[in-house]
Amino acid sequence: MDTRTDIRVHFYDTDTMAVVHHSNYIRWFEIGRVEFLRSADITLNELMEAGFVFPITEVKAKYHAPAQFDDELVIITHPEALTKAKMAFSYEIRRKEDNTLCVTGFTQNVFTDKASGKITRLPEVYAAKLQAAMNR
Amino acid sequence: MDTRTDIRVHFYDTDTMAVVHHSNYIRWFEIGRVEFLRSADITLNELMEAGFVFPITEVKAKYHAPAQFDDELVIITHPEALTKAKMAFSYEIRRKEDNTLCVTGFTQNVFTDKASGKITRLPEVYAAKLQAAMNR
Amino acid sequence: MDTRTDIRVHFYDTDTMAVVHHSNYIRWFEIGRVEFLRSADITLNELMEAGFVFPITEVKAKYHAPAQFDDELVIITHPEALTKAKMAFSYEIRRKEDNTLCVTGFTQNVFTDKASGKITRLPEVYAAKLQAAMNR
Amino acid sequence: MDTRTDIRVHFYDTDTMAVVHHSNYIRWFEIGRVEFLRSADITLNELMEAGFVFPITEVKAKYHAPAQFDDELVIITHPEALTKAKMAFSYEIRRKEDNTLCVTGFTQNVFTDKASGKITRLPEVYAAKLQAAMNR
Repeated sequence: MDTRTDIRVHFYDTDTMAVVHHSNYIRWFEIGRVEFLRSADITLNELMEAGFVFPITEVKAKYHAPAQFDDELVIITHPEALTKAKMAFSYEIRRKEDNTLCVTGFTQNVFTDKASGKITRLPEVYAAKLQAAMNR
Repeated sequence: MDTRTDIRVHFYDTDTMAVVHHSNYIRWFEIGRVEFLRSADITLNELMEAGFVFPITEVKAKYHAPAQFDDELVIITHPEALTKAKMAFSYEIRRKEDNTLCVTGFTQNVFTDKASGKITRLPEVYAAKLQAAMNR
Repeated sequence: MDTRTDIRVHFYDTDTMAVVHHSNYIRWFEIGRVEFLRSADITLNELMEAGFVFPITEVKAKYHAPAQFDDELVIITHPEALTKAKMAFSYEIRRKEDNTLCVTGFTQNVFTDKASGKITRLPEVYAAKLQAAMNR
Repeated sequence: MDTRTDIRVHFYDTDTMAVVHHSNYIRWFEIGRVEFLRSADITLNELMEAGFVFPITEVKAKYHAPAQFDDELVIITHPEALTKAKMAFSYEIRRKEDNTLCVTGFTQNVFTDKASGKITRLPEVYAAKLQAAMNR
């Protein structure tokens, strides 16, 4: 099941072309996946306390239509792969007023041991929650 | 010929994992292509005054190694396609101290008429400069 | 009457010290005053379409306690002066969980004619709404 | 002696009013004080490794004239007080082309023990360097 997260475009998100700067959608993908994980009963703080970090290894975005200051947007976060080793999500960001598709994207994180910096695998307790979230 | 642009990682570029937040490399690609265009005798202000904007249509990044606060980095900007209709660049961001490859990426912009918002083509004066920059 | 606006701390808001970077509270003051104005039936887009801009002339902030990733915060926006010529607000940003005061601040904007760039005065229609909002 | 640090305004620093968003000058003050400290032979990484952090307790800024995309600016950082307990700096940010004063500001940091989170005092080795930098 996808997670839908509402945001509003702030003035500081925009640039001289009077549209949202393209880098900000990459930040909004992060808002989407944090809320997806929260809906699966996983928080990043819990993972960090358990000794895991989750660096991004890949980001892609296609820009279809610009959003502007004060627009109400929805971030739709879809799980592509959630395993012990990595998380991959795809995203749509749409303007709520008219459902215009603004941006589509993809990200991948890998789970890493905080102490050693090496790629690692999540314990079963988290993997089971991720698996359940995939199958919702 | 590639353009090399030096930057330093600021404290505000980093996040709780004590590394550069991944969205900032997307901003640094922009620094790289602005400097590439400047080296080709084209500034974005000149294009905007001439009635053109140049929205991003696509961004990709792969993250190989994290950069940290105070690191000196170099953005290496390579032209992939520079036509009357679009600009595509690829990028490498490396740590200067040891030449570690931190991030690779790709962006594409399309030229758009500022007044109508429609995709357009650059006049010959700019296209010739871009062509010359491709062939340097 | 003060306006209360809820926000959550995003990962990209934090820095290497694992707390919110101090510059972000300045951005959050902006979220607070935009919502205050919306509650007074004024939007910045409406002002810009009417030919006004509203550059910031002054910002002050005192930092009392750090906020961290995933904290739920409330921005409390209090009008200090709302006239035809300027808007001044004070702010408190508090952690919702325990009401900890994180940051206090102050901002001032002046109304400016978009075309000339000169300081100007708002027409009565907006001034009356601002006056009403002061007296709520 | 003041430290002068050159920066260029990036596209992502600007907003819908086609000027630098006011929050970014607060970030540029940080660039200025990091370079001031480097010129005094102190790096923030060295302080953090020695167990100190240096949270901001106060920021003030007055905005005199807007900077725009591609402007070359200079951050002039002036030490106001550098003691074992705190650092206070004042700043001017000027447009290089015509020396226009864009923004003036002030910041204060206090030294804090990283482990306990309590305010602390720097050891003599750092205090002496700061004192020397004040008297240059």
